[in-house]
Amino acid sequence: MRDLPIGVFDSGLGGLTVVREIRRALPNEAIVYLGDTARVPYGTRSSATVVRYARGCARLLIERGIKALVVACNTVSAVALDVLRAELDVPVLGVVVPGAEAAVTAALSLEQQLGHAVSIGVLGTASTIGSGAYPRAVAALSTRHEVHAATAPLLVPLVEEGWVTGEVPRLAVERYVAPLVSQSVRVLVLGCTHYPLLRETIALVSSQLSRDPIVVVDSAEATARALAELLAARDLLASGKSARLELLVTDVPGTFGDAAARFLGERADAPVQVDIPVTL
Amino acid sequence: MRDLPIGVFDSGLGGLTVVREIRRALPNEAIVYLGDTARVPYGTRSSATVVRYARGCARLLIERGIKALVVACNTVSAVALDVLRAELDVPVLGVVVPGAEAAVTAALSLEQQLGHAVSIGVLGTASTIGSGAYPRAVAALSTRHEVHAATAPLLVPLVEEGWVTGEVPRLAVERYVAPLVSQSVRVLVLGCTHYPLLRETIALVSSQLSRDPIVVVDSAEATARALAELLAARDLLASGKSARLELLVTDVPGTFGDAAARFLGERADAPVQVDIPVTL
Repeated sequence: MRDLPIGVFDSGLGGLTVVREIRRALPNEAIVYLGDTARVPYGTRSSATVVRYARGCARLLIERGIKALVVACNTVSAVALDVLRAELDVPVLGVVVPGAEAAVTAALSLEQQLGHAVSIGVLGTASTIGSGAYPRAVAALSTRHEVHAATAPLLVPLVEEGWVTGEVPRLAVERYVAPLVSQSVRVLVLGCTHYPLLRETIALVSSQLSRDPIVVVDSAEATARALAELLAARDLLASGKSARLELLVTDVPGTFGDAAARFLGERADAPVQVDIPVTL
Repeated sequence: MRDLPIGVFDSGLGGLTVVREIRRALPNEAIVYLGDTARVPYGTRSSATVVRYARGCARLLIERGIKALVVACNTVSAVALDVLRAELDVPVLGVVVPGAEAAVTAALSLEQQLGHAVSIGVLGTASTIGSGAYPRAVAALSTRHEVHAATAPLLVPLVEEGWVTGEVPRLAVERYVAPLVSQSVRVLVLGCTHYPLLRETIALVSSQLSRDPIVVVDSAEATARALAELLAARDLLASGKSARLELLVTDVPGTFGDAAARFLGERADAPVQVDIPVTL
């Protein structure tokens, strides 16, 4: 069991920002990654549709044999994690709770530094924000931090287009972040696996809007840490050194290899196309 | 047969800009519209996947009973029209050829006015532009007009977000349109059914970039005219006055009614959710 790969999936390629951190934290682990590129994005869809799609992705990975499942997608983590946990026999880890933990830790530390209370902000897709998953996850950890959440629908297309610096992303980020900063948000969670590619612009714009420092939290690192703890606790750490990374996609791979390298920070083997039988 | 509705489909709600023109041109016709909102957008997907999705949409409409099928989506018109025509027993009309016809007509008239040759530009999704469908359609009508095509991936998300005027759309449009204008493009085809909602910004930016006038062509109107001719030629015009408009969507309808009204320019009955069985 322990030498099976870790399964990771996302609506598209954004989840590879999580894989990047998992490979840093757990360099001996084999990973099989599924990007549902034929149906990306999930963040604009209803919860019912996201649950259906998530089930199809999870089952495909389970059938290939995995020892744990990482849902590297905020939308699926926000609306479908309980369903997946109830239905699957392997440990299932999402990105929302690790992200909320990292945010609360950052908020407590910043409050000590500043000497006054700060709020936590979350940027995410319509589905993620609509689910209320982040405020719930923060409330379970700390009742003293207000959470202000905002949808940021244009950020995913900007990343997909490769427009991560310059005037257009700057103006778009400003429009989403300014209302949060004016609500005392000083810790800002990147609540979508695409956003880390805009991290520099988000940090820059936030710092221009606030006299206090703003801490930008990316759940990928926190998720990789939580995964390492989970595998150790269940005695599931790999016994050897495989580090194999297999990429699966649902649309024709085409140029996905180049995009994958951008999210992953390294070149991987070419993605392989797979079919998921579903009733839409 | 003639009193069956006209079937219209698109990847999402953008095709309602075509329905709006059909209702103007053919006010006595019943229409059933299908928006594949659970899998929108198509424009970033491979041709193989677009063909699979288009087949599912077309079959669903055919099974409900329609007298003609309008593919109100540039991506599907560009990559899947031949497949649909070969497989279906009803007349099938796309938006690319009517759009190309309108562009050539506009180019010829503008050349008379200006006294020099002009090029035709097309903005569209990656799939539409990658297919080469517009240059082929123009070449079939006129060999004297060069066609310069450009992908404009951010325009669909901007329209979906409702950001159709102001600084962000202006800068994005400028980035896409400026290279076309510098290649002598004076007739600009909106090669995606979402773009008419950005028409004002596109026209404004284009006129600022060029000393000559720029004619912006929307294929919706041309498609509605072509449909009226086709129905008349085949003796398929409605005998009575129904004008019923039925909206079908594949994702949970939720707030689609409001978005639909924006594209359609009028309130319609609430959309109804339908299932399409497909293997992804």
